[in-house]
Parts: sequence; C-alpha cells; structure tokens
Amino acid sequence: MKTSIQVNEQEIDNWLRWLSDYGRSEEGGVTRLLYDESWAEAQTALKDRMEQIGLSARFDGVGNLFGRLEGTESGNAILTGSHVDTVVNGGIYDGGFGIIASLLAVGYLFEKYGKPKKTIEVVSLCEEEGSRFPLAFWGSGSITGKYQKDESLLLFDSANISMSKALNNISFIPDSDNLLRKDIDCFIELHIEQGAVLEKEQKSIGLVSHIVGQRRFTIKVTGESNHAGTTPMPYRKDSLHIASQLIVHALDKASTINSLVATAGSITASPNVPNVIPNEVVFTLDVRHHDEEIIQQYCENIFNYFKEIGAQKGAAVEIDQWLDVKPVEMNKELTRIAEEVVKENELSYKTMTSGAGHDAQVFGTYCKTVLLFVPSVNGISHSPLEYTNKHDLKNGVTVLIELLHKLAY
Amino acid sequence: MKTSIQVNEQEIDNWLRWLSDYGRSEEGGVTRLLYDESWAEAQTALKDRMEQIGLSARFDGVGNLFGRLEGTESGNAILTGSHVDTVVNGGIYDGGFGIIASLLAVGYLFEKYGKPKKTIEVVSLCEEEGSRFPLAFWGSGSITGKYQKDESLLLFDSANISMSKALNNISFIPDSDNLLRKDIDCFIELHIEQGAVLEKEQKSIGLVSHIVGQRRFTIKVTGESNHAGTTPMPYRKDSLHIASQLIVHALDKASTINSLVATAGSITASPNVPNVIPNEVVFTLDVRHHDEEIIQQYCENIFNYFKEIGAQKGAAVEIDQWLDVKPVEMNKELTRIAEEVVKENELSYKTMTSGAGHDAQVFGTYCKTVLLFVPSVNGISHSPLEYTNKHDLKNGVTVLIELLHKLAY
Repeated sequence: MKTSIQVNEQEIDNWLRWLSDYGRSEEGGVTRLLYDESWAEAQTALKDRMEQIGLSARFDGVGNLFGRLEGTESGNAILTGSHVDTVVNGGIYDGGFGIIASLLAVGYLFEKYGKPKKTIEVVSLCEEEGSRFPLAFWGSGSITGKYQKDESLLLFDSANISMSKALNNISFIPDSDNLLRKDIDCFIELHIEQGAVLEKEQKSIGLVSHIVGQRRFTIKVTGESNHAGTTPMPYRKDSLHIASQLIVHALDKASTINSLVATAGSITASPNVPNVIPNEVVFTLDVRHHDEEIIQQYCENIFNYFKEIGAQKGAAVEIDQWLDVKPVEMNKELTRIAEEVVKENELSYKTMTSGAGHDAQVFGTYCKTVLLFVPSVNGISHSPLEYTNKHDLKNGVTVLIELLHKLAY
Repeated sequence: MKTSIQVNEQEIDNWLRWLSDYGRSEEGGVTRLLYDESWAEAQTALKDRMEQIGLSARFDGVGNLFGRLEGTESGNAILTGSHVDTVVNGGIYDGGFGIIASLLAVGYLFEKYGKPKKTIEVVSLCEEEGSRFPLAFWGSGSITGKYQKDESLLLFDSANISMSKALNNISFIPDSDNLLRKDIDCFIELHIEQGAVLEKEQKSIGLVSHIVGQRRFTIKVTGESNHAGTTPMPYRKDSLHIASQLIVHALDKASTINSLVATAGSITASPNVPNVIPNEVVFTLDVRHHDEEIIQQYCENIFNYFKEIGAQKGAAVEIDQWLDVKPVEMNKELTRIAEEVVKENELSYKTMTSGAGHDAQVFGTYCKTVLLFVPSVNGISHSPLEYTNKHDLKNGVTVLIELLHKLAY
C-alpha cells in the first residue's frame, strides 16, 4: 500500500526521528556504524519505506540502498540522497536528513505528478564517515569505482573484525554484487552545513560551488631540553617557543587569505613538565581551500618560514604530510538551476564552499553533482547537540522537490 | 686511625665514586632518596669517614650529619657542605661534590695546619631535592627553624609511607633530637652549576651573588571547539592560536630583560585532534630573576597583555599562581673574600646568579652564606650524564680549602 506524503515541518521531523531511532544513543545522539546492527536495521527499514512510497528498492553488493522511480523516457538516472552511517554518538541530521528529504521529495512528486520523464533513484549510501573501518566514502566510492572491493574487505575495525566478516554478518542479503553504476546522469545531495556561516549570515540555503581540498601535516620541532632556571634565554633551543611562533605565523597568515582555513588541532610537548625547557614539540596542521594552487602557495610560504626559523634558532623542523585531498568543483549548470529554484521560492542563499568532506566530492569527479546546504544551529555537528531549525529543513526539502521537478518532469 | 688526605684530581674522583656507590643505578646514575636504604648507608659511611679524618661526628634528629673540628677559640661554627640526597637516577656531583669537597678540605687543613681558631663543621644535609616527600630543603630547613618537624612527619611518599615511619626505620639512631642550630657563624656551599654558563664563558668558578626568586603559573585559555573545515578564520575562538601568541609574547619579552628567564614547560590542548579547533589550552609559565621587583613588573606586564588578547579574541584567560619563592642574596663580605681567593689562585671566574634552588638559599636568610659553582659539562644535571671535568673539581676544592683557611685559621 502506498503511503500518502505530506511535506510539512512536522512530517519532516517525524521521519527524521523515525530514522534516528535506529542506533539512538543514551545521550540522545545516534550511532550507526557500517554493517553494525543498527545500521542494518536502518537500511532494512528504509528499504521498506521506499517500497511503501512506490519505489523499487534494492541493495548493491556493499549495502548501498537504491529506491528507483522509473522514468517514462530511457536514459541515465538522477541520483539523490546521502549517507546512512553516523559517527559515534553523532547527530540525527548529518547524512540522515539528505536521505529523508530525498524520500519525501520523490514520494511527493510521484504522488502529485505521477511518473517522471527521467528515472530518479533515492540512495541511502552505506558509509561516508570513516568511523568504523580505516576508510571513508565507501558507499559513493564503490558506486563510482574508486574502491577495489576485494582489497577493502581485508581491512579491520578496532575490534579486529574484518570488513568482509562484518558484511557477511549483516541481516539482509544484497540483491546483486554489482557496484559500479555507469547509468547515472547526476547526483544531488542535500546536507546540513556543519558550520555556522549560513546562520551567521542569516541565509536559508547554501549553494556549494566547491568542496575544499585538504592537506594535513605533522610538524616536529626538535630543540634542546635544559633546566628552566639555569639556562639563560639566549642559550635556549626552546622547542615550544619555536613551535608557538610557527603556529602563530601559520594561522595569522591563513587569516589573510580569502576562504583559506588552517587549524593546529593537536600539540604535544616533551618532557612536558613546568621546570624543564621542552626539547620536542609535535603539532598538526590542517589546511583547506577550494583552489589547490592557493593551498600549494600557502604551504610553500609558511614551510619556508618554518625552515628559516628552525635554522635561525638551531632547531630541527620536520614536516610530514599525511593527507592530500584535491578540491572538487560542483557542476555549474546544475547549481545554476538550483539557484533559479531558490530565487523562485524567494529564499535567501549564499554561494559558498564546503569545508567538510561529502559524498558529493566523490560523485563530483564522476558525474554532474550539486550539493545544497541548510543551516546548522551554532555550527554544531557530530554531536547530539546537532540541530537545524524545522523551517530550514522544510526549505531544504522544498528546494529539492522543485529541483527534481525541473530536472525529471 | 686518621686517614692521610691527598687533594688531587684522582683522589677527588675516588672519593666521589666511593660515595656514589651508595645508591648506584643501573644507568650509571645515583638514587638516594630521603631515609631509604642507600641514603642511610651513605650517611653512615660518611660518618665513619668523618671520624677517620679526625672529626667528631653526629646525626641530628632528622638525619643531618655533622663532622666537627673544634676551634681553639670559642664562638660560632663555620658550616660547609651540601645535601646527600639525589633525584631518582640523578648524577654523582649534585650535592655529593659539596660534601666530598668539604671533607677533603677540612681533612687537608687539619692535617696540614692542625686545629683552626674557629670551629668548622662539615655537614651532609639529609634532604634538598624534594624527590620522595612533598617538601624540599628538609635538611637546611630543619637546621634553620623553617620547618616544624611534627607537622612534616605526617607527610606521605608515593608509596603511602609517612615521613615519621620512614625516619623510624632508618638503620642508625640520631645522636640528639636537637635540630635548630643557633651556633652557626656562616654557611659555605660548593656545588656544580647545573647550567652551561661557566662552560660557555670558559670560567672556572662561579661566585653566586643571588639565588633567583621563582614564580610558577598555570594559564588556561578557553575558546570554542569548532569544525576545522567549516569554520572561517574570523569566526574562530581558537585557544591554541591564542595560547601560542601568549607564549611567544611572554618568552620574547623575557629575552629583553637582563637575567630574567621564563619557561613554558608544559602544554595540553583539548580535544587535541587534528581536525577540530581546540576549545581549551593549558600551559605553565615558570619565571625567575634575582630581583623580585623585576619579576613582579614582568608578570604584571605580560598578564595585562594576556588579558587584553583574551578580551580581544573573546576567549577566557585564567591565570593561577602556585609557586612563589623569594630571591635570596648571598653574603657580600664572604663572597668578596671568596673572590680574593679565586684571584690569588689566578682562576677565571664569573659573578652570577643561581637559577636553580640550593640549601644556600635557606641558610642565606638565616646566617652569612656563600655559594660557589664549578662548571657542568653541557649544563646537564639530574641525569647520569651529569659531569664536571676533574680539573674543575680540583679548582673548586682548592678555593674551598683556601677560603676556609682565611676564615678559620
């Protein structure tokens, strides 16, 4: 029996809360890790709901769930959705909102307008967060051929369970082993911002032009341990004094470059006692921008300064890069159409970059992709405190409905 | 039977190694903690050696060991010595050298010149380092009335043994319960520098004018945790960025003030992960100078800046002081006489402050006190690598002999 679809604030909230009951944590958050019980129950329940709204649902070989609404014309499918997995004790909106919004939108369109011209598929991607196994974007990566399934299945989680074993143990059986989808026209992802820019600037919708590139580094400064009392200032090779100077320089410099963000998130000093000059300080640096050339220039610039200061102070400065993710541009034409929809609905909006990673960045190098944001209250995410106002959720669903209508009908 | 005293490099080395066999660690260092077995064996062996060189030896009620050479004139005693306790796996020179040098000097003078006019006592102070119980300067503090014995005996070590029990368990019985000495004319301490100033400036002897005052602080910067990717630089309250700026300011400023030293020895950030802006950073600041007014001005100055930056960035900066030790001036007249001796022996020297604490600072507010340094190779101390060249040790003993000769004969 087909469910009748209401698109209003209360109904969106109901659907979100229904999904978040799968894996609900004591603190009010959600924990759904790839292939765990809550994850499998959520995917099974989503499959049922897809069928209730008239979609033809199936799992692929890694547990991605597709709900297909066949178009009247032949051709590739429009894919819309997000990821079903969460971080440990995460929020109910991250990923989940994109799936619920897509279900509501497609269900509403089907009910109101019948079959579309172009095929639409709602997708509940199996994994994005990288919270269980040492890989991320497992869902979108499998669909787009970025992962070799056989190799990845050999990975282990922290309880020493292999992905292969975890996949075999889930409570449903994939409908096919096929992963790679060559029949996708475009991917549409609606997601919470996970930042405070829309809220601070009082905008309803974020149109993402780029997902930023990221580089991460560990910087080790090696000076000399000495007695805090008996070593005059000019004789010191104080690794914390030097590291502090490097951090101030890197972050001050970042503040002068439009859209660039840099974060020294972690620092450790050794021996780390009050009356000994630290001989070694290790800190991390995370650098993000949507233009790789700007990242490159910034890093070259500050690392030259790092080396210079090290040489000046007689300390070793070692720089180790351990992450390099390229920026991805979203599809201009699709984003222009989304902008039209936003304007037609008289919603305020901002064209912006995404500083966080999303499945849209994996699809973005594979097919036409558009990424839309709704505001996050206080920018909080990956926490039970994650929240988006109901009218903002409603605006997001409205835009998605009308964008799909424009593209598929 | 009286031992015949040779004062040469080899003999000084022999005596030092003899003492350091009590508590020798596997790594080649020494561990003699207050009232432990090695400590008690060392004090007992030192008492025997005092008697062998003709001194009349006794323990006081906390285990300080005195070896007395009675003068021919009545009057207060000249006290010379240092502390017998060590840090865990410390060096053989820290404290031990002052005792051995005093024994050799007094033994040599007695053998060569007979009884002095003024009484001399060699002292092996029971405790200075604070390595076992949560107090330091227990030996000099007991002699000068700075400690209330009854209260201190209630303190516990990390194995939950009280000082009272530890004292009762030692293998010798104190000769008297008396602690406070009102019959001391002056205190002479010869010690290794534990810093690299004499070595770097190629001086043989350090004449200490002051022992520095110390203040220690814990500074807590509270900002806001946010996503490293989605939070633009102007929206951040990055506690590590702020803390780094405070550290750079404090240490740069310290470098502009003659003789002042400041150390940020310890730092912790929270949550301390690469992709989250730290909401809280805690670091320590250790500030030392021989003029309290300068410490006061420096601290006022930098803490005003700390508060200003905190207010500017919207972060809380809390400053908690947990140590305040006043500077102590050494006796000018005694130090002038020591300078005469150094000059007569054509030794290079430097008038300097001591950045580390010593028993001389406890005696310094109680009686005339002089503190003399010999160089430490690479400034290393509190380590098995602690080392002083044999000719520097010899120079130290020579100066001590002639200073005692001038004062007592």
